[in-house]
Amino acid sequence: MSNEYLKFDQTAEALLAKAKRDGAETMWDRKAAQKTQCGFGEAGVCCRICAMGPCRVSPVPGKGAERGICGANADTIVARNFARMVAGGTSAHSDHARDIVHAMHAAKAEGPFKIRDEAKLRRISAEWGIADADTKETYALAHELSEMALGEFGKPFGTQRFLKRAPQARQDIWKRENIEPRAIDMEVTTLMHSTHIGCASDYESLFRRGMRTGMSDGWGGSMIGTEFSDIMYGTPSAQASSSNLGVIDKDQVNILIHGHDPNLAEMIVLAAENPEMIELAKAKGAKGINIVGMCCTGNEMTMRHGIKIAGNFYQQELCIITGAIEAAVVDVQCIFPALPALAKKYHTRFISTSEKAKISGDMFIQFSEATGLENANEIVKIAVENFVNRDASKVEIPDLKSDTMVGYSVEAIIDHLDKVVNTNTSDPMGTVKPLTDVIYAGVIRGAAGVVGCNNPKVEHDYAHVTIIKELIKRDVICVVTGCAAQAAAKAGLLQLEAKELCGRGLKEVCERVNIPPVLHMGSCVDISRILHLVNLCADVKGIDPALLPVVGIAPEWMSEKAVSIANYVVGSGINTYLGVIPQVLGSPNFTKLLTEDCQEFLGAHFVFEKDPLVTVDKIMVDLEDKRTALGI
Amino acid sequence: MSNEYLKFDQTAEALLAKAKRDGAETMWDRKAAQKTQCGFGEAGVCCRICAMGPCRVSPVPGKGAERGICGANADTIVARNFARMVAGGTSAHSDHARDIVHAMHAAKAEGPFKIRDEAKLRRISAEWGIADADTKETYALAHELSEMALGEFGKPFGTQRFLKRAPQARQDIWKRENIEPRAIDMEVTTLMHSTHIGCASDYESLFRRGMRTGMSDGWGGSMIGTEFSDIMYGTPSAQASSSNLGVIDKDQVNILIHGHDPNLAEMIVLAAENPEMIELAKAKGAKGINIVGMCCTGNEMTMRHGIKIAGNFYQQELCIITGAIEAAVVDVQCIFPALPALAKKYHTRFISTSEKAKISGDMFIQFSEATGLENANEIVKIAVENFVNRDASKVEIPDLKSDTMVGYSVEAIIDHLDKVVNTNTSDPMGTVKPLTDVIYAGVIRGAAGVVGCNNPKVEHDYAHVTIIKELIKRDVICVVTGCAAQAAAKAGLLQLEAKELCGRGLKEVCERVNIPPVLHMGSCVDISRILHLVNLCADVKGIDPALLPVVGIAPEWMSEKAVSIANYVVGSGINTYLGVIPQVLGSPNFTKLLTEDCQEFLGAHFVFEKDPLVTVDKIMVDLEDKRTALGI
Repeated sequence: MSNEYLKFDQTAEALLAKAKRDGAETMWDRKAAQKTQCGFGEAGVCCRICAMGPCRVSPVPGKGAERGICGANADTIVARNFARMVAGGTSAHSDHARDIVHAMHAAKAEGPFKIRDEAKLRRISAEWGIADADTKETYALAHELSEMALGEFGKPFGTQRFLKRAPQARQDIWKRENIEPRAIDMEVTTLMHSTHIGCASDYESLFRRGMRTGMSDGWGGSMIGTEFSDIMYGTPSAQASSSNLGVIDKDQVNILIHGHDPNLAEMIVLAAENPEMIELAKAKGAKGINIVGMCCTGNEMTMRHGIKIAGNFYQQELCIITGAIEAAVVDVQCIFPALPALAKKYHTRFISTSEKAKISGDMFIQFSEATGLENANEIVKIAVENFVNRDASKVEIPDLKSDTMVGYSVEAIIDHLDKVVNTNTSDPMGTVKPLTDVIYAGVIRGAAGVVGCNNPKVEHDYAHVTIIKELIKRDVICVVTGCAAQAAAKAGLLQLEAKELCGRGLKEVCERVNIPPVLHMGSCVDISRILHLVNLCADVKGIDPALLPVVGIAPEWMSEKAVSIANYVVGSGINTYLGVIPQVLGSPNFTKLLTEDCQEFLGAHFVFEKDPLVTVDKIMVDLEDKRTALGI
Repeated sequence: MSNEYLKFDQTAEALLAKAKRDGAETMWDRKAAQKTQCGFGEAGVCCRICAMGPCRVSPVPGKGAERGICGANADTIVARNFARMVAGGTSAHSDHARDIVHAMHAAKAEGPFKIRDEAKLRRISAEWGIADADTKETYALAHELSEMALGEFGKPFGTQRFLKRAPQARQDIWKRENIEPRAIDMEVTTLMHSTHIGCASDYESLFRRGMRTGMSDGWGGSMIGTEFSDIMYGTPSAQASSSNLGVIDKDQVNILIHGHDPNLAEMIVLAAENPEMIELAKAKGAKGINIVGMCCTGNEMTMRHGIKIAGNFYQQELCIITGAIEAAVVDVQCIFPALPALAKKYHTRFISTSEKAKISGDMFIQFSEATGLENANEIVKIAVENFVNRDASKVEIPDLKSDTMVGYSVEAIIDHLDKVVNTNTSDPMGTVKPLTDVIYAGVIRGAAGVVGCNNPKVEHDYAHVTIIKELIKRDVICVVTGCAAQAAAKAGLLQLEAKELCGRGLKEVCERVNIPPVLHMGSCVDISRILHLVNLCADVKGIDPALLPVVGIAPEWMSEKAVSIANYVVGSGINTYLGVIPQVLGSPNFTKLLTEDCQEFLGAHFVFEKDPLVTVDKIMVDLEDKRTALGI
C-alpha cells in the first residue's frame, strides 16, 4: 500500500490493506476512480444556476468563453458559487443549532432533555435582557430563552443578539460595512436569492452578502449552538480522554456515534449507561458498552463527558473496517453516504436518525425531541444484540491511541487563568486578562485557532499537526476544534506533556496555568468559543480584535461549513489561512478581493497557502506585524 | 442570419443583424462560444457541494466513476442538485414577496406606498383571523397584517397560513406526506442543510424535502407576493394593452423596467406621471415618457395599469438593440449581467436598484421603501435627460405589436363569471362555479396553466405558442403567466378575437363570458393565482384538485424558480409538463420518482416532453383520463 496522502497516518496502511482483503471500498478507491477533477469546477467557473446552462467560462482570460449565456463572467460565477457555499455552510451549522434550541424548548425537570448548567442559562438570559433572569423558575426561563433564540433564526427585524459580545470598535465596522447579520434563515434565503440567475453580478456585492450570511453563522447559529448545548448538556471543563482508533475495545460492544448534534449523542450515552443494557451486553458475551465518537459529535461528547474519540473525518471508514463496531449511529453532516454499503461488508449496523439526513442503505430510526431517549434505547439495543454477529476473524484494531486533555470552554480557560491570578497578581478574577497580558508581554507571541476538516487533496492530518507543532515551537498558543482538534489529539498535542514541544515562553505559561499548549475547544460550531475568547481578550484592551496577534487556520478543510467559518472569522477581524485553495482562482478579481482588498474594509483577509511550513512562516510575520503595530 | 432557435421570432432576425453591425454581443454569440455544454452538468451528476470535489459520476451506469469521493451516487447527487434548485427558486420568489410585505409595513395614507385595495386588505386580514378586520383603521390593519406575513417567513412553529385555501382532501395529503411547509426561510435553510456534504443521501427523502420547500414558495412566498401586491397596488381587472418591441415609441423617452418586484416599477410609473418630468421630456425634444415593461415587472405593470410589454426574457437584449431605450431600470431576477455592456454600445443607461441584485457595469441607485419615490424620480430624470444622447441613426424599432387583454386576477375572472350567473342561472354570485360547471359539462375539456421562461435550448416562444394554440383548439382554456404570457401576448392569443382559434365549446364560453381563451393572470409569483383558482374550482365540488382535468406546463423554462414552481404545482396535485428536461436524467431512479412514483403519494407527477405537439397529445390523454375518472 502506498498512498502519498496517508504517509503521515499510522493507522491507515494496515486498515486499507485489510479493506482490500475484505473487498471493501474506501474513499481512496473512489478518489482514484474520479481521475482528474474538473478544471472548471476547481477554478470555480462552472455555473449550474439555471437551465440555460451548464455554462463554463475559461479560467484563463482570453482562452475560450469569457461569459456564460446570460453574460455572467468569471467574477460573477465564482462569486456566486462561493456565496452559495457560505449559504450551505451557514445552513448546516444553524439548522443544527435550531435543533438544540428545540430540545431546550422541550426540556423539563424530569428529563431526558434537562437544564444541566443553570448558571449559564441565567447568565445568557440576563445577557439577552430577560427580566428576573436570576430568579425565574428554571424551566420557565429555559422556555422563554429558547423562544427568543428561535427568533434569532426568523425574526423579521433586528440583528443577531450575540453581536454585542464584540468590542464596540468591531461592532462599528460591522455597521459601517452593512454586514451585521439579521435573522439567520433570512440571510440564507436572501443570499440564495441574490445568487439566482439575473440577480447580483457585482462580485464585491456578492462577497459582502455572503460575508453577512457567514456572520449569521458565527455570531448566530454557531454561537447559539454552543451556548445552548452547554446549558442543556453542561459547559465543558478540563478532563482527560484518549483518541484514535485504538479506543475501540475488542471486548465490548462498540457504538460509533458520528455526526454533529449532541442531542442524539447525549441520549445514546444515557441509554448506554442503563444497567439493563449493560446486563444485556454481558449476556451477549461483551464486557460492556463502549461509546466512541467521531467528527464533531465526538468532540461534543469528549468535551462534556470525556468520551473517547475514534478519529476524524477521513477515519470514518477505517473505524468500520476494524470489524469491531456493532453500530455506527449518525445524525447530520460529514457522514459518507458510502458507510451503509461499507458496514454491510462487516456485521456493523448503520443507523441514520435525522429526518434532515436520511441516509439510504441500512436502517433509519427517526430521532426526535419528543422520543429522544426511547429512540436511543432502541438504537443501543440493536447494537448490543448485534455483538454476537461480530466475526472475530475480521477484527483488527490498531494499537494506537493518545492520551488527551479536553474540555477547554471559555469558562474552563478562565477557571485555569483564575488560579494564576489568585496566587500571583492583584487582577480581578473571572477574566481573560492574564491571557491578554502574556500575549502583550510577549511571553506568548500570539494565538492561532486551528480548525476544519480533512480533505483527500492533502496528506491526512499532516498539515494540521505540522502547523500546530511549528506554531507552539514559536510560542504561539493554539486552540483547536473539529477534525483539526482530533488530528492534534492523535498526535499527542493535547497532553500537558506537549509543553516540551513549545518555545520557552509558551512552555512557562503551560506550566504555570497547567494547560497543554493546544487547547481543545470543541466541535466546529464551537469555533464560536474561539470567537468569544478572542473578543474577550480584545475587550480587556478595549480594542478591535483585528489588532490582536491572532490568526485562524483551516489547513485541510473541505466542507461548505468551513467556507462559512472562514467568512465570519475574517469578518470578525481575524486573518484566516486556508490550506486547501477555495474554488475561486478562475476569478483573479475575486481572489484579490479575498486575499487583499477586503483587508481595507474588514481589517482582515484570507490567505491561501498549501504548504504548511510556508503557512507558519507567513503567520509568524503576520503576528509580529500585529505586535509591532500595537507597540508590544 | 440563420438561427434555428429564432425561426419563430419575427423581431429577432433584423435586430440581431443590427446588433452585429453595432458590434453588440448577444446571448446567441455567448451560446455559440459555450460550444457543447457539459454532459455531466446536463445529466445532473456533477457535484460541487464540498471541496473534496468537484466529483462527477457517470451518467451511464457501468461507465466511469459510480460514486463521488464521499460515496454519493448519481441518485444522491442528482437529488441534491435538484433540491438546491428548489431552494434557489423558493428564495427568489419569497424574498421578493418579503420586500412587498416590508413596503406594506411602511405604507401610510399620504403615500407613496399606500393601500389601494382596502377590501382585499380586510378580506385577507379576516382570512388570517385578525379580530375586527372589517372595522380597524386601514393602516393599523395593514401594519398588523404585514407583521403576520413577515412571520410566515420566519416563525418557529406552525405551517403556512394560506394552506387552508386548499380543499380538505388536499390538506390531508400534505399532512400525511409531511410536506406542509413551515416558515419559508426555515424550509430553505433546512433544505440547504440536508443537501450539505454528509447529510441526506436518500433521494426520495431529498425530493420530499425539496417538495416541502417548493410548497413554501407556492402557498407561501408567491401567494403572499401576489396578494400583498394586490392590496398595495390594486387587484388587477381586465383591461387592454399591447405587447412586443413595437411598443417602444421613437418619439418618446423610453424607460424599460425589467425585473420582478412591483415596488420599484410602481414608483417609476408615479414618477413618470409627474408633470414636471413630462415637461422636462418635452424640453428635451420628446413627446413624453413611455414606460415599457419586460419579464415579470412587465406583467405586474400590465396587469394593474395596462403598461405595454416590450417583450419577454430573451428579448431583453433586443430591446436595447433598438437604440431607443433611454434607461433600462432593473431590480431583481432574470436580468442578464450582459446588459450594462450592451447598453454602452448605445446611449442607454443601465440602472440597477436592488441591494440584493447589484449589477456591475453602469449605475447603481439603491431603491428602498424609505426613499422609493425619490429614487424613482432620480431614475426617471436620468432617463429623460438622456434622450438628447439618443443616436437617431442607431434607432430601429420593429413595427410589431399585438393588442392584448390583460388583468385576469381570480377576482377579475369571478367578476366576469358573475355576469353569466346573473343573467342565466340561479347560482350564487362571486364564485367560480360557472367555470367548474362548463368543465364538468364538457363544454371545456379542461384547463391548462402555461407558464415559465424562455430558454435558448428551444426555439424562442415556439413551444409556448404552439402548445397554447393546440390546446385552445381542443377546448382547453389556458391561463398564462410570466414569459409564457408574453409569448401568448405577442402571438395575439390574449385578444378576444383569439376565440376564432378555439374549438366550439371554448369559443362559446369566450363569447358568453366575454374573455379571451387565454387569460393573462400575471407574473411568475402570480402562479399562486392559478393555484387559488384551481383550488376554488375543486372546492365547488368538494374534491381534491388532483381529480380535476387541469395541467401545468412550462414549455421553455430555465430558472430555479421554475423548478420550485414545478414542485409546488405537482405538490398541489397538478400534473406538470416540462418542455426543457431538468438536469436529472443521470439518475434513472430520481427521474422515475419525478415522472411516475410520486403520483402514488402526491396524486400528480412530472412529465418531461420536449416536443410541443407530443406534449399536447399527452395532455389531452391526461385530461380525458381525469374526466373519465370523474365520470364527466
